[in-house]
Amino acid sequence: MALQKPTLPKGTRDFSPIEMSRRNYIFTMIRSVFEKYGYAPIETPAMENLSTLMGKYGEEGDKLLFKILNSGDFLSGVDLDGKDAKKLTADFCEKGLRYDLTVPFARFVVMHQSELSFPFKRYQIQPVWRADRPQKGRYREFYQCDADIIGSKSLINEAELVGIIYDVFDSLNINVVIKLNNRKILSAIAQLIGAPEKIIDITVAIDKLDKIGLENVNKELLEKGLTTDQIDKIQPIILLKGSNQEKIKVLKSLFFDVEIGKLGVSEIETVFSYVELMKIDCDIELDLTLARGLNYYTGAIFEVKAKDVPMGSISGGGRYDDLTGIFGLKDMSGVGISFGADRIYDVLQDLNLFPSKLLSLTKVFFCNLGALEESYAIPYLIELRKEGINCEIYPESTKLKKQFSYANDKHIPFVVIGGTDEMNEGMFVVKNMESGEQEKVSKEGLINMLKSHINH
Amino acid sequence: MALQKPTLPKGTRDFSPIEMSRRNYIFTMIRSVFEKYGYAPIETPAMENLSTLMGKYGEEGDKLLFKILNSGDFLSGVDLDGKDAKKLTADFCEKGLRYDLTVPFARFVVMHQSELSFPFKRYQIQPVWRADRPQKGRYREFYQCDADIIGSKSLINEAELVGIIYDVFDSLNINVVIKLNNRKILSAIAQLIGAPEKIIDITVAIDKLDKIGLENVNKELLEKGLTTDQIDKIQPIILLKGSNQEKIKVLKSLFFDVEIGKLGVSEIETVFSYVELMKIDCDIELDLTLARGLNYYTGAIFEVKAKDVPMGSISGGGRYDDLTGIFGLKDMSGVGISFGADRIYDVLQDLNLFPSKLLSLTKVFFCNLGALEESYAIPYLIELRKEGINCEIYPESTKLKKQFSYANDKHIPFVVIGGTDEMNEGMFVVKNMESGEQEKVSKEGLINMLKSHINH
Repeated sequence: MALQKPTLPKGTRDFSPIEMSRRNYIFTMIRSVFEKYGYAPIETPAMENLSTLMGKYGEEGDKLLFKILNSGDFLSGVDLDGKDAKKLTADFCEKGLRYDLTVPFARFVVMHQSELSFPFKRYQIQPVWRADRPQKGRYREFYQCDADIIGSKSLINEAELVGIIYDVFDSLNINVVIKLNNRKILSAIAQLIGAPEKIIDITVAIDKLDKIGLENVNKELLEKGLTTDQIDKIQPIILLKGSNQEKIKVLKSLFFDVEIGKLGVSEIETVFSYVELMKIDCDIELDLTLARGLNYYTGAIFEVKAKDVPMGSISGGGRYDDLTGIFGLKDMSGVGISFGADRIYDVLQDLNLFPSKLLSLTKVFFCNLGALEESYAIPYLIELRKEGINCEIYPESTKLKKQFSYANDKHIPFVVIGGTDEMNEGMFVVKNMESGEQEKVSKEGLINMLKSHINH
Repeated sequence: MALQKPTLPKGTRDFSPIEMSRRNYIFTMIRSVFEKYGYAPIETPAMENLSTLMGKYGEEGDKLLFKILNSGDFLSGVDLDGKDAKKLTADFCEKGLRYDLTVPFARFVVMHQSELSFPFKRYQIQPVWRADRPQKGRYREFYQCDADIIGSKSLINEAELVGIIYDVFDSLNINVVIKLNNRKILSAIAQLIGAPEKIIDITVAIDKLDKIGLENVNKELLEKGLTTDQIDKIQPIILLKGSNQEKIKVLKSLFFDVEIGKLGVSEIETVFSYVELMKIDCDIELDLTLARGLNYYTGAIFEVKAKDVPMGSISGGGRYDDLTGIFGLKDMSGVGISFGADRIYDVLQDLNLFPSKLLSLTKVFFCNLGALEESYAIPYLIELRKEGINCEIYPESTKLKKQFSYANDKHIPFVVIGGTDEMNEGMFVVKNMESGEQEKVSKEGLINMLKSHINH
């Protein structure tokens, strides 16, 4: 076989041991909070039938799905004549890679409905794939961490998700602001200005306020066919300032005869009162410009931003009243939240918030000084492992400098040396790699000495 | 959008919360043993370039790779005329799904060689995909759990892998026999009968002894062009009986002038002496019929079988001297082991060895008896979570029977009820769902009472 210089597909990444320990730190925190709130894990396959995925993410999403060529003779029975790539894709491919965790979850609920106990609270931490143009912070393979409850309309669920958000970022030491909105309020605004059919255009435009500024938002609204009069009417709502209570007061007066608006405000108030009862000590802000561009939300909309780093949202979600309808299961209201592991990783990295102990998986390293010395050391290596301490011995008897450099690269905190002198005395030398201090200890005392150092 | 009855691609599976907790139990055990021996985690992308994957798994393997259709206009610049599916696959697809973890690991080592400290000990627990015909116990998506050390020829590594195998199955309470062979011994046998060029045919045939029996093995050897004289010579070797020491003695006399045979026997003896020094209390058996049909092994070959269940191998591996050579990095000897999570799952299931506590993620369930009762209960729910106890409240105030059935389905061990009577008395009723016992407790004593029950 010819020599190949290997590369990775663009937009994909390897994760080294240090990156893995940092990623696992994030996943472990998120997982333990999800479980604290009664959410249970599921997993779905990487591949779904394209019939499950297509049409769920808009036309653009359909293009961004990775499609898998049918196995065997994929040409068999296909008439190639006059067909373009799009038509042939349908002939050649039955399966695609998961694009998010929400549609597979809906598919899961419908397929397993008879085995599930509703309301069903699930979490799911798995990679998703999108054929997006890769750029800084955007990959073609990335992890999502989702928690959703389906089959309950109670607003206590929204409040518990706020609690989950708070607990996750509190445990990671990231200061965040949680932004909250309600799709019903957005609908009421559209209704109020006499353009209910323009709700999508309006939400898509005002969702961009942060990114493109007010002037460009208004320009977009004009392009979408709103009159200047209608646009003027929206301004005070978009730019509404003050405390959550003050905003709610203004909205109540604006929506005094808009039913859906009153409902939206009342939902927000209920969520706030649960949050208070639960003593969730978070910075939560009613933000009427929050729409998240997702058309399936019908109630609450969430978004989380890190306070100390300029970065897009690091978590988001909302309520959807009919996610499983497309698969034939009606009236299943759900609400969920998704954490973006890659962005959270970048925030922790930027703020230097990863605990340094994550670096060292192995706690004790035994130098290898030859066959006899190996036999002297191995019983203690085995004993330490029995005590649950990760440790290793260098497999070759080679230069000490090389062995120390190996231990150093792996951030191993303690190195044990047992050479001829130590063997004769029944001792070991233990080097603390952080302080540089060396200590001599009897072989009988080695295990206890290392245990006490490591557990402090 | 039309109504769709959703299905899964054949050979793929969803995992429910209970299946997940059982799978995580297996992964956690394997992971913690890998780390105890100094192996560190890496992950590689699901997609690799087909140039990385093709030609590494034989012609059959190339067919079983899942290929991903190029994004965008995959027809562009492709001349369809006269091309068959195989040729067009190369035009249409640049990427494929990971088929195992070994080739991606070799690719990883070559790409990251300048950042790595050798010998490099890595583990990797990720799914792989094969377009195999699905059947009982064989899936198109399944997890592999691999540990490999690369860049060291020391046989201490082989012995440590035996230690890892022992520790993993000991922690899972599965009784196993570890079978060990050495490719050099197989080569010596081929040499001894004067058919060194037939080494592959011979190993492939005798590897099937367990499955097809001696007669059919001999028939296959005959078909592959061995003479009856040569086949006769192999018989005593294949059918060699006795203790490991007895077998070694026979091999030594057989190989007295076959260099590679002497080397193989000496390697086996060294591994056994390390295993003894490490006091690994396992059932380890020298099995000359073990070949694992994998042509890249050059030294030790491992295989593990469960003793109490008829099942194929649940773990296997070996030493390969030139895995990274194909990607341009020479002289990198490595040795590794792979655990099959799905088969281990089936063994634990068949032997009823999954701990029952895996069933309950949520420990305490609060019934929801209305708005006032909710306000009464929620502060205690929050307090319990602060104590690190997973708990939940039913989000709707509905029939108690439905709520109890929910708690029961989730195997939640304790249910807390606070109705009007309890509120008036400042009490809660706690029901132990396993024993059926009910206990009344003051609201101030609730947390401590639940904590003490749960921690016992």
